Amino acid sequence: MANQYIDFETLKYLLYDVHQLEDVLQADRFADHDKESLDMFLESVKEFSDRELFPYVKEMDEKPAYHKDGTVIVHPQVDVMMKKGGEMGLISGTFDYDAGGLQLPMTVFTCAAFILDAANNHLPGYAGLTLGSAELIVHFGNKELNDTYVPKMLSGEWAGTMCLTEPQAGSSLSDVVTKATPTDDGYYKISGQKIFISGGDHQYADNFVHLVLARIEGAPAGTKGISLFVVPKKRPDVNGNLTPNDVTTVADFQKVGQRGYCTTHLGFGDADDCQGWLVGEAHHGLKYMFLMMNGARIAVGRGAAAIASAAYHASLQYAKERPQGRKLSSDGKKNPEQGQTLIINHPDVRRMLLQQKAVYEGSLSLVILAAKYYDFKETLQDKEEKEKYALLLELIIPMVKTYPSEMGAEAVSNGLQVLGGYGFCTDFILQQYYRDIRIFPIYEGTTGIQSQDLLGRKLLMENGKALQLLTAEIMQTIQEASKYDDLKKYALKLGEKLQLAQKVIGFLVGFAQKGDYERFLSDATPFMEFLSNITMAWIWLDVASHAKNALVTGQKTYAEDFYESKIHTMKFFYKYELPKTNGLAEILLDEEALTIAGEKEILN
Amino acid sequence: MANQYIDFETLKYLLYDVHQLEDVLQADRFADHDKESLDMFLESVKEFSDRELFPYVKEMDEKPAYHKDGTVIVHPQVDVMMKKGGEMGLISGTFDYDAGGLQLPMTVFTCAAFILDAANNHLPGYAGLTLGSAELIVHFGNKELNDTYVPKMLSGEWAGTMCLTEPQAGSSLSDVVTKATPTDDGYYKISGQKIFISGGDHQYADNFVHLVLARIEGAPAGTKGISLFVVPKKRPDVNGNLTPNDVTTVADFQKVGQRGYCTTHLGFGDADDCQGWLVGEAHHGLKYMFLMMNGARIAVGRGAAAIASAAYHASLQYAKERPQGRKLSSDGKKNPEQGQTLIINHPDVRRMLLQQKAVYEGSLSLVILAAKYYDFKETLQDKEEKEKYALLLELIIPMVKTYPSEMGAEAVSNGLQVLGGYGFCTDFILQQYYRDIRIFPIYEGTTGIQSQDLLGRKLLMENGKALQLLTAEIMQTIQEASKYDDLKKYALKLGEKLQLAQKVIGFLVGFAQKGDYERFLSDATPFMEFLSNITMAWIWLDVASHAKNALVTGQKTYAEDFYESKIHTMKFFYKYELPKTNGLAEILLDEEALTIAGEKEILN
Repeated sequence: MANQYIDFETLKYLLYDVHQLEDVLQADRFADHDKESLDMFLESVKEFSDRELFPYVKEMDEKPAYHKDGTVIVHPQVDVMMKKGGEMGLISGTFDYDAGGLQLPMTVFTCAAFILDAANNHLPGYAGLTLGSAELIVHFGNKELNDTYVPKMLSGEWAGTMCLTEPQAGSSLSDVVTKATPTDDGYYKISGQKIFISGGDHQYADNFVHLVLARIEGAPAGTKGISLFVVPKKRPDVNGNLTPNDVTTVADFQKVGQRGYCTTHLGFGDADDCQGWLVGEAHHGLKYMFLMMNGARIAVGRGAAAIASAAYHASLQYAKERPQGRKLSSDGKKNPEQGQTLIINHPDVRRMLLQQKAVYEGSLSLVILAAKYYDFKETLQDKEEKEKYALLLELIIPMVKTYPSEMGAEAVSNGLQVLGGYGFCTDFILQQYYRDIRIFPIYEGTTGIQSQDLLGRKLLMENGKALQLLTAEIMQTIQEASKYDDLKKYALKLGEKLQLAQKVIGFLVGFAQKGDYERFLSDATPFMEFLSNITMAWIWLDVASHAKNALVTGQKTYAEDFYESKIHTMKFFYKYELPKTNGLAEILLDEEALTIAGEKEILN
Repeated sequence: MANQYIDFETLKYLLYDVHQLEDVLQADRFADHDKESLDMFLESVKEFSDRELFPYVKEMDEKPAYHKDGTVIVHPQVDVMMKKGGEMGLISGTFDYDAGGLQLPMTVFTCAAFILDAANNHLPGYAGLTLGSAELIVHFGNKELNDTYVPKMLSGEWAGTMCLTEPQAGSSLSDVVTKATPTDDGYYKISGQKIFISGGDHQYADNFVHLVLARIEGAPAGTKGISLFVVPKKRPDVNGNLTPNDVTTVADFQKVGQRGYCTTHLGFGDADDCQGWLVGEAHHGLKYMFLMMNGARIAVGRGAAAIASAAYHASLQYAKERPQGRKLSSDGKKNPEQGQTLIINHPDVRRMLLQQKAVYEGSLSLVILAAKYYDFKETLQDKEEKEKYALLLELIIPMVKTYPSEMGAEAVSNGLQVLGGYGFCTDFILQQYYRDIRIFPIYEGTTGIQSQDLLGRKLLMENGKALQLLTAEIMQTIQEASKYDDLKKYALKLGEKLQLAQKVIGFLVGFAQKGDYERFLSDATPFMEFLSNITMAWIWLDVASHAKNALVTGQKTYAEDFYESKIHTMKFFYKYELPKTNGLAEILLDEEALTIAGEKEILN
C-alpha cells in the first residue's frame, strides 16, 4: 500500500512562505505561539496520523459503520480519534484558553486537520462536528449550556452533531418542520426527524450533543422562523447523571464512500419526552448556524484537497515503481529490444499526475488562504481591515468549498486511471478515494447551492465591494509576478482573465437588473467553475512567485527542485486548466436560456 | 427503484430515422430481415431484459462474484444470460447462417446489446466475450476448431474469453511472455499467467474456451512474435468427453464496480499439461486479435452509453417525483408560503439532466453509426465504398470507445448529484452506476492508448484519407441542416469547429514531421477530447436535422414533443459542451511541452 499521503514540505511552504503565517501571529491572541511551537504541533499531528489514522483507512472502508440494536457500531479508531485527539487539542485547538482551547490560529489548525483528513478521511469528521457544535454553544449559548456541555465535548468524551436536514426538505431549510414546544421549565419539547446526521451515534461517546434546527410553535414561515436548540441524547442532571432524552437512532445510511464515518437518521421525541434548550434568541437559529458555516465549508474544501493529496501520492508512488511500455523513438516506433520504462516517463501519465498536483496543491493553498482571512477577520484590530477580510472570506468561501470538491474528484479519477486496471481493483486504495471524495460536492450545500450563493449573493454583497477587494488582491499578485521575466507571460494572462471575468459578471448581472433572477442564476454552476478557475490561476501565480523569489534571492528553505516543481506546476495549470475559461465564458455570455422549465416538458 | 433504463422511442428513432437502417438492409446478407421482424427481435430483447436482467442489477453488485475452491461463483442469472441468451441469438446474432447465426446486421445487434447493457451491465459481457472469441475461431481457425468449439459457444453451453493482459506487461502487448512450445501432436504446450480475464471462470459453463496470446519459442521480440491459441479449460476428445487441461483459476479480482461480472487471474500449464491449438498462422496473433478489436471497442462505447442511459432515467424519475425548494420570483426572493416545486423545475437540475441526455443519446447515436459503418464495410459490394466505410470506422473507433466512457462517467456523476445526499447512499442505484461505468475508460485500451491510436495512427492513415472522408460526411450534414433556418446557426458553428480542427491537426502533425513523436503525441488525450467533442456536435446536428425534417414535413412517427426535445438537446450540446473545444484548442496549439520527462524529476 502507498505509504505517503501528504508532502509535509509543501504544506509548510504554503503555510509559512506563501501565506506568511507570521502576519497572522502578530495578533495578541496568538502571542504564545511561534513557528517552533507550531511546527512541533504539526509534527505531532503527523506522527499521530501516521500511527493512528493512516493504517486504518482501508479497514474502515471495508468494515463500515452499521446500525445495530438502536445504536451505530463504528471502528475502534473513532475512540482514539476522539479521546487522544481531544487530549491533543484536535477538537479544542482554535478555542479560547478560557473555553479550554489552545488559541491556535485557524490557519495552523486547518493545516493540522488537513494532515488528519489526508491520512484517513473517515475519522476527523467525528472531531470536526464536535468542534463545530461546541463552537455554536460557546458563541451563542448561555453559561449553563457552556458549563454543562462544552468541556466534555472538547475532551472528546461527548460528541457533537449538527442536525439540519429533514427528509421532506433536503437542502431547503425553510421547510424545516421539527417542532419545539415551550414548557414552563425552561426547556422546549422537541419532535421531528433529522437525516444525514454525520457522527450522529456510536458506541464510543458517553453522550451526544445535537445542535438541532427546529421551529417554535407559531413561528413565522420560512427561514426566519427557525431556532437553534441543544438536544442531548441523554440529559445530564446537576450531579452529572445522565437520563435518556428520547432521541432515537432510526438508521445508519449505508453509503458508497466515507463508510467508516457514520451518517445517521435520528428521531426526536417519539415518546414525547425529548427536551431541548434554546441557543441564543428564538428565530435566529439559521443565522447562528450560518455564522459557523464558513468554518464548516473551509473544512469541506480542506477534506477534499486532502483526499486528492492522498490519491496523488498513491498514484505517484505507483507510477514511479511500475515498468510498462517504452518511450517513443524519433521515428515514432517502439523498440521491443529496449527495456521497459517506468510509467512516470509516459507524457500522458505525467499529464495526469501534474493535473492532480495542480489541483490538490492549489486547493490546499486556497484553503489555507481562507483560513488566514478567517484569522484576520477575527483578530485584526482595525475595523476596516477586519471588514476587508470578512468580505474576502465571504466571497471566496463558496469556491473554497466547491473547487477542491469538484476538481478533487476529477483529480482522484486521474489517480485511479494512472493505475489502469489495478486502479479499479479493491486491493488498491485509489478506488476508495474515488468513492470517498464523491460526497464533497454534496456536503454542506451542494455545488449548485454554492454556485447560487457565489453569483446570487456574494458577488452583489455591498454593491460588489468583496469583488473589488478580491480584484485588488489579484492585481497585487500580478504586480509581484511581473517582476520576474519568466512569470510575466502568466501575469499578463491572469490580467486578461480578470477582464474577461468582469465582462461575464456584467453580462449576468444584467439579468438581475432586469428582474429576471431565474435567468440570472440559471448558469450559476458554470459561473462557479469559471470564477474558481481564474481564482486558482491567481493562487498558482502567487505560489510560483514565491518560489521564483526564493530561487532569485537564494533564500531557500528547500531544495532547488522543490521550487522549480512549483513553477512547473503553475505553468501546467496555465496551459491545461486555465484555457477552460474560454469555453466557460462562451457558455456564460450566450443569450439563449435552455435550462429554464417551459410550458412543455421536453425532458423524457 | 427506478423502473426505466432506456427510451425505446429514442433507440428506434436513431436506428430507423437517423441512421436509416433500410440502407443497411439492402445487402443480400440481410435479405430475410425487415423492419417488422427486427422490431420483434428488439421487443423480445427488451422483454427479456425487463424480466431477467434489470431486476437483478443491484443484487449482482451487492453479492459480487468470488473465488472459491479453485473456481469463481457468480450470480445465477449468468446461467440465464448464457443459455436463454444463447437460444435467443444474443451470442450468435451476427454470425452467418452457416455458423449457426441469425445474420443480423451489426447495427441491429448493437441496439439489442445496448438494451441488455442498460438493463444490467454485469451480465451481457459473459455473452459478449463468448461471441468475440467464437468470432475469432470462425474467422481464423481451421475446420476442426470450428466444429469442436463454435456450436457449443453460440448456444451458451461453453463460454469464451480473450486472454491478452499479463501481470508484467499491462497494456504493452509487445511484452507478452506466455510461452507456446510446439509438440509433434499438432498442439502446443502453453505456459504463463493472464490477468483481468473477464468471465474467465464460473459454475455455469461446462467448458471455457480461452483465446490466448502467446509467444512460440524462438519467435521475434515485440508484437510481431505473438500467436493466437485456443486453450480450453477442458480438452474435448473425439467423443466429446472433457479432460482437465491444466488451466488454473488463480483468483477473482475484487473490483469497485461491475462486481457481478467476474474478472479472473488464470494460470496456464502449472503442471506442464496445458494444450493449446494455434489459430491461423504463427506470429499473426495480434493482427487477428485487432481485426476483432473494432467490435470489442464498439461494445465498450455501447456499454458506457447504456449505463449513462440507465443513470439518466433513474435521476430523471427522481427529479420528477421529488419536491424541494421553490422557484425564484422576479425579485430574487423565495416565498415560503408558496408550495414546494419538483426539483426538475430548478435550472441547475435541468442542466444536469440535459447534460446526461446529450451525452447518452449522442453516444448511442455515435455507437449505432459505428455499427452501420461496420455493416457497410462488411456487406457493400463496391470496393471503393467498402474501403470508405472501413476507413471511416477505423477513424472513429477510438472516439466510439472513449467518448461514451469518459463523458458517460461525467454524466452518471451528474445523475448522482441530482439526488443530492441520496445519490451517495447505497439504497439508490446511481452510486452503483457511478462505480460500474468507471472501468470503461480503462477497458480495451485506456483513454490514453485510444488517444494515441487516434492521433498517432488513425489520422495519418493513408495520408489522412480517413479524415478527409469524415470531413466530407460532416460537410454533408452541415448542408442538410442549413436548409432549416433554425439550424443554420448551429451548422455554421460546426463548420467553424471543423476549420479549427484542421488548424490543430496541422500544428500537431508538424511535430511528427520534425521527427518529434513524443511531443506529437504528448497531448493526444486533450486532442481526443477535442475531436470527439466536434464529432459529437456533428452527431447532434444530424439528430436534430432529422427531427426538424419530421416536424417540417409532418412525417412524424412520434409525438411533436419528441422531436422538439431532440432539437433542444442539440442546442444544449452546442451551448454547454461544444465551447469546451475553445480551451482544448488553446491547449493543443500551445508550443510549450510540460509533460515530457526531463533530466530532473519534478514530480514529488
